[in-house]
Amino acid sequence: MIPTIPEAYMDLVTRPVVVTLVTVMPDGQPQATPVWYSYDGTHILVNTARGRQKDRNMKNRAKVTILAVDPENPYRYMEIRGEVVGEDEENGVAHINELSNKYRGNPDYYSANPAMRGKEQRVIFKIAPTKIMAR
Amino acid sequence: MIPTIPEAYMDLVTRPVVVTLVTVMPDGQPQATPVWYSYDGTHILVNTARGRQKDRNMKNRAKVTILAVDPENPYRYMEIRGEVVGEDEENGVAHINELSNKYRGNPDYYSANPAMRGKEQRVIFKIAPTKIMAR
Repeated sequence: MIPTIPEAYMDLVTRPVVVTLVTVMPDGQPQATPVWYSYDGTHILVNTARGRQKDRNMKNRAKVTILAVDPENPYRYMEIRGEVVGEDEENGVAHINELSNKYRGNPDYYSANPAMRGKEQRVIFKIAPTKIMAR
Repeated sequence: MIPTIPEAYMDLVTRPVVVTLVTVMPDGQPQATPVWYSYDGTHILVNTARGRQKDRNMKNRAKVTILAVDPENPYRYMEIRGEVVGEDEENGVAHINELSNKYRGNPDYYSANPAMRGKEQRVIFKIAPTKIMAR
């Protein structure tokens, strides 16, 4: 049974809340970065470019954690612990455009950075939650 | 050489910014929680109560990471990777009161939760940064 995000905290998914993604470096050091994300009702989806540290960490160490904090109340938050269960390059650009629309109101991600268009391989990492703690 | 927080990002320390502390669970899963923190010019100081998961994780796995995000701009942030180099129970209450003053404007931490006064052992974890990335 994959735990689901409680209804009362779904606003942390539907609003453009930048969340913290934690991956693990080869030496065991946590790596924490702000990311965009989405939720398909079962899996958390994050998007990165091939070759970045996050990409390498998630490919090699599946245990990752997301912290979503309410921008209006830093004491209201949701910690999502999970495991990477899939990668998707084919829909990588469609998904980053979807995220760009959610977070910037602009469905063309690369319009803000035209030099990178077609120059990187976007990849979706699909994370299955194992434990969700909402406070 | 312990890296220091860049002057241009010191506002993320001096303002009452609630940050994310990442510790590591016994199975390698990152644990991420919002915390108060301070900086003595060299070490990052966080404060918890003995027996909590954070306490157990930091005692057993020294590699921890902090992400401080500007509340006014989620794309401006500082990732501090470091290692726990010391614990201090003696000044635990004085430090949580100092943090309470910084974050709540109230120098008596337990006034908000009187039932816990004297009922828990506060401990300061002293973290030496190994890498600071500010963006």
